Amino acid sequence: MTGPVADAAARALAAIAAADRPEVWISRFSDEEILAAASSLDARLAAGHVLPLAGLTFAVKDNIDVRGLPTTAACPAYAYQPADHAPAVVALVEAGALCMGKTNLDQFATGLVGTRSPYGAVRNAIDPTRISGGSSSGSAVAVALDMVDFSLGTDTAGSGRVPAALNGIVGFKATYGLVSTTGVIPACRSFDCVTVFARDVDRAESVMAILTANVAHDQRSFPADAPLGPPDHPVVAHPAAALLADLPLSWVTLYQEALAQLEAQGCQLVEIDLEPFLAAGRLLYQGAFVAERYHAVGRWIDAHPGEADPTVGAIIGAAASVSAADFAADLDRLVAARALVEAEWQRVGADSLVLPTTTGHPTLEEVAADPIGVNTRLGQFTTFLNLLDQCAVAVPAGRAAGLPFGVSCIGPAFSDRVQADVARLVEGSGPARLPQLSPPALSIAVVGAHLAGQPLHHQLSDRGARLVRVTSTAPSYRLYALDTVPPKPGLVRVADGGASITLEVWELSPAGFGDFVAHVPAPMAIGTVALQDGSSVSGFLCEPFALDGALDITDYGGWVAYLRSGATASVK
Amino acid sequence: MTGPVADAAARALAAIAAADRPEVWISRFSDEEILAAASSLDARLAAGHVLPLAGLTFAVKDNIDVRGLPTTAACPAYAYQPADHAPAVVALVEAGALCMGKTNLDQFATGLVGTRSPYGAVRNAIDPTRISGGSSSGSAVAVALDMVDFSLGTDTAGSGRVPAALNGIVGFKATYGLVSTTGVIPACRSFDCVTVFARDVDRAESVMAILTANVAHDQRSFPADAPLGPPDHPVVAHPAAALLADLPLSWVTLYQEALAQLEAQGCQLVEIDLEPFLAAGRLLYQGAFVAERYHAVGRWIDAHPGEADPTVGAIIGAAASVSAADFAADLDRLVAARALVEAEWQRVGADSLVLPTTTGHPTLEEVAADPIGVNTRLGQFTTFLNLLDQCAVAVPAGRAAGLPFGVSCIGPAFSDRVQADVARLVEGSGPARLPQLSPPALSIAVVGAHLAGQPLHHQLSDRGARLVRVTSTAPSYRLYALDTVPPKPGLVRVADGGASITLEVWELSPAGFGDFVAHVPAPMAIGTVALQDGSSVSGFLCEPFALDGALDITDYGGWVAYLRSGATASVK
Repeated sequence: MTGPVADAAARALAAIAAADRPEVWISRFSDEEILAAASSLDARLAAGHVLPLAGLTFAVKDNIDVRGLPTTAACPAYAYQPADHAPAVVALVEAGALCMGKTNLDQFATGLVGTRSPYGAVRNAIDPTRISGGSSSGSAVAVALDMVDFSLGTDTAGSGRVPAALNGIVGFKATYGLVSTTGVIPACRSFDCVTVFARDVDRAESVMAILTANVAHDQRSFPADAPLGPPDHPVVAHPAAALLADLPLSWVTLYQEALAQLEAQGCQLVEIDLEPFLAAGRLLYQGAFVAERYHAVGRWIDAHPGEADPTVGAIIGAAASVSAADFAADLDRLVAARALVEAEWQRVGADSLVLPTTTGHPTLEEVAADPIGVNTRLGQFTTFLNLLDQCAVAVPAGRAAGLPFGVSCIGPAFSDRVQADVARLVEGSGPARLPQLSPPALSIAVVGAHLAGQPLHHQLSDRGARLVRVTSTAPSYRLYALDTVPPKPGLVRVADGGASITLEVWELSPAGFGDFVAHVPAPMAIGTVALQDGSSVSGFLCEPFALDGALDITDYGGWVAYLRSGATASVK
Repeated sequence: MTGPVADAAARALAAIAAADRPEVWISRFSDEEILAAASSLDARLAAGHVLPLAGLTFAVKDNIDVRGLPTTAACPAYAYQPADHAPAVVALVEAGALCMGKTNLDQFATGLVGTRSPYGAVRNAIDPTRISGGSSSGSAVAVALDMVDFSLGTDTAGSGRVPAALNGIVGFKATYGLVSTTGVIPACRSFDCVTVFARDVDRAESVMAILTANVAHDQRSFPADAPLGPPDHPVVAHPAAALLADLPLSWVTLYQEALAQLEAQGCQLVEIDLEPFLAAGRLLYQGAFVAERYHAVGRWIDAHPGEADPTVGAIIGAAASVSAADFAADLDRLVAARALVEAEWQRVGADSLVLPTTTGHPTLEEVAADPIGVNTRLGQFTTFLNLLDQCAVAVPAGRAAGLPFGVSCIGPAFSDRVQADVARLVEGSGPARLPQLSPPALSIAVVGAHLAGQPLHHQLSDRGARLVRVTSTAPSYRLYALDTVPPKPGLVRVADGGASITLEVWELSPAGFGDFVAHVPAPMAIGTVALQDGSSVSGFLCEPFALDGALDITDYGGWVAYLRSGATASVK
C-alpha cells in the first residue's frame, strides 16, 4: 500500500544512500522490512487509525533496545538480541513513527566525541574532517543529513546536546525520569536520560510529548505546579564574559547575538554565577559516580579483555577500585552543590539559563591526539546538567565559517515547556504548531483585564499560563463595563437576548489555576462559560450586584473592541 | 521573673530528680542556666512576644548540636563543642521552648536497642528490666517519664519510632527532608530524619509544624498537591496475618483491636502485600548503604581504636570495604523496590498503612545475649520506611501486661497530615486542637451540597480537604433553592435586604482547589464571599439566570436548616 509513510520511507532510504555515511548506522532494518512496515502503517492510516507520528522516520541510538535488531552499545562482543522494544520505542511505534535502524555511538555511551567506536568515528554532518560529537553521534548526523525525521539519543553528561550543537540540529533533554529508561543500557543510571534529536524545536517537542506520556512504570510525572510556558518577559540568565574565554571569538560573537536576539524579543538578561553549576559537573567524571558505569558494564569489560575501546575501557575500569564511602562522600557534595545552585536560581529569578552548548568544532585529528582533553572541553557547559536535575533544549544559533553554533536553554526540573519556548525564541520560529509536552493543566476563559496585553494579564503569565485559543461565548451572554480599578467587564449569562462575546482560553497548572482563582476579587467569579462551539470551560463571570448602573457593552462584541471604540468616557 | 516558663522548668527539674534515671541524659544545662533562660522567656511573654512553644520544655538527642553543650553521639572521645544550635533547635528556641539538655542514644545512632552507649543502657520507662529501644533512647524516656514535654530524636531505620512504641508515647517521623538535618551527625545521610517525641499526636504535630516551617536551606517543601487530611472514610492497609507470626499473641490481639477501632470510626480496611516494603528494608543493613555510616564516622573510628562501642564499631567498620559499584547496584535495587511499593500503594488505594511499630519488649539481658539478633527483630516493621521515602506517626495502642503496645500510621512522602489524623483516630483524641503542619492551602466557603454530610461533600474530602471553621456570611446575601440535581442552593450578594447565611470554610491544596473549581458545574461559580467577621474568602456563588423562579430560602439562615424544615416539596 502506498501513502505518506511509504513516501517517507522512500525518501529516507534515498537520503541514507545519498549521504554515504556508513559509520552513522550500526544496524538497519532491510529495505524490504522498512517498506513492509510502511505499507502496514499506510493501511492503518487509510483505515482511520489515529497515528500522530505517521509519516515520520526515526533512528535509535544503539544502546536502546529495538526488537529485531541487536543492541550493541558499539561493542560487538557485548551485543544481544532484545526480546522487546524499550518502552520509549514502543511509544513511538504505536504513534505511527517508522524505525529505520540503530545508530553508532561512543561505546557504552562513554564520550562526547563520537569517535570511540569500532564501527568507525562518526564524521560531522557539515565538515567530514571534524567530529560529530557524541555519544549520540549517529543519531545526530542521521537527522542533520535528513536520513530520518528524528532520532533517539541518550544523555548523561551531554550526549544528547553536544552532537546537536556540532551538527546544527535540536537536542531535547527533558527532565530526568520523564522518559522511561527501561531497555536502555545504563551509563550512570542515576543521571541517564533518553533524548530526542530533530531539525526544529517543534518536531523535537512533539516527539518528546509522546515519550513523556504515561508509557512505563519507571517514569516521573510533572508536578501539579509545573509551568506551561514562560512569562511574557522571560528572565534569561547568562554567565560572566570571562567564562567564555575558551570559546572561539566567532562563537562568542554568535552567543552575544543570540542573547541580543532574546532581548529584542522581550527577554530580560541577568548575569548568573556559573561556578556552583560547574562545580557540580566536576563530580560526574572527577568523582566516584563513574562507579555507576562500572556497575553497569565494568565486570563484563573485565571479563572480556581486549573487547572494549581502550579509552572507554580505561575510564570504566578505573572505577572498579572506588569505595562506597567515597561514593557516599560525593553524594554529600552533590546535595551541597544542588543547594547552592538552587539558591543561585532563586537569587537571579531566571526562567532560563542560556549557554553555549559546547566549546568548539574539533577535528578527528585533534581527538586522536588528545582523546580525554578534547572530550572534557566539549562537556564544559553540559556535564553538570543531569547531576543538578535540570532540563535543556539545545538549539542552533547561527553559523561561523559555515559551521553550526548552538546554545542550550536550561532550567530546573519540570520547566521543560519554558525551555522549549525560549528555544523557539532563539530559533525565531514563532508559537508552537505541533502538540507540546503536557503537564497537568486546567483551562480558564478570560474576557477582560486578563486578556493578552491588558493590565492584569501578568497574573496569568507569571503563573506559567499558556494561550489555548481565541474564540467566543455561545450567543447567550451580555457584557457590562464595571466600575472597578482597573476597569473590567462583567460577563453575565442571560435567558434571552444574549450575544457572543470574544474571549481567550488560557491553560494553567492545577496549582496555578487554584492560586489564580483564589485571588480573583469581588465582584468577579469563576464559573462555567458556554462557548460558541457548544463546549464549555471555566471562566470569568460577575456577581449581579455589580451590574446596577453598569454600561451594557454587549454590542461591541468584546472588551478590547469596546476599549478601542473610545466609549469608555461614558462609563459612570 | 516567674511565669509559665519558670513553672514548667521547675516541674521538669523536679521530674528529672524524681525519675532517678541518670542514664537518660548525657549532658544538661545547669539548674541556674535553665532558670535564667526560663525567666528571660517569661519576661518576653510578659512583654507581649508571640512564643507558641513557651511553657514547654524539651530535650535533644545528643547527635544534634545545641550551643553550650558538647555533641557526643554517645562517644566521649568524639565529642566536640558546637558553635551554634542546629537549625531545628534554633526554630524551637525561637518559638519559646526551653531546652533542658542532651539525651543518651545508641552510639552514632547505630542501633534500635538503646543499650549501645558508654553512658549506660537506657532502661524502659515502664519496666526498668527491659530496654527503652533506640537509638533515640534518652529522648523517648525523658518524655515518657514527664521529664520534658517533648524531645528531638533522629530516625534512619526506626530510631524515632521503636522507642516511642516501647515507652508508650508518640514518635513523629515526617517526610524525609521536611526538617533540616544541618548540625546533626549523619548516620546514613540519604535517609536520616530529625523526629519529635511527645505524649500525644497533637503536641508532636504542633512541634513538627515549627520544625517544618522554612528555617534552613536544606529542607524540602510540601508539593502543591499535598493532602491536608484524609478522606471521610480513610482506606487503611494492613498486612496478611501471617506476617505477624513473630509478635507476642497479646500484641496481635492489640493490633487487631486497633484495626477494629479504626473500622468502627469509618475506616475501610484493605490487605496490602508487605513483601516489597520488607525487601527494601533489607537493603539498609544487609546492603551497601551502610557505607554512608562509614563515610560519616568510619575513618574517625579507625583512627581511634578502642573508643567506639564494640558492636557499633564492628557494624560501621565492616562498611569500609564496600565498593562503590556495589553501592551503585543497591541504588538500582532501591529504584526497583520503590517502583514496586508505589505500584502496591496504587493497587490498594490506601491512605495509610497501619503496622505494629515494633515486635516485642526485649529485656536488657536478652540484648546482651544477642545484640544483633534482637536489634534486627525490633526493626522488622520500621527499617524500610526512609529508603522508600515514606512518613510515619508512631502512636500508643493499648497495653499488654502493663507494657505499652503501639502502631505506626505510614504513608507516602508528604502525606504527613493524613498520617497524623489517622494516628488521632488510633488515639481516640478527636480533631486537632494545636497548630498542625502547614502544606500550601487555599480556603473555600461552601453553603450547600458540599457541606459536611451533604451529597457532594466527597468532592472536597477526596481531594484532601480539611475543615477550617463553621461561620456565616456578612448580612448581605440571599439564598435560593435551585432546580439542580442534586438539589443545591444559590448564594447571591444583594445591595439591600440581605441576611447572614451559615457556611463552612474548608482548605484544599492549591492543586486540589484548582481541580475542584474547574469541575464546578453551571450555574455555580466561585467568587468572593464576605464573612460576618469582616473578612472574605473564596466561595460558592450562583449565576443570576438560575434564580428565575427559584424559591428564596434566605429566612432559613442556611441550606441544612432549610432541608430539615421539610419545605423542599414547595420548590417549583
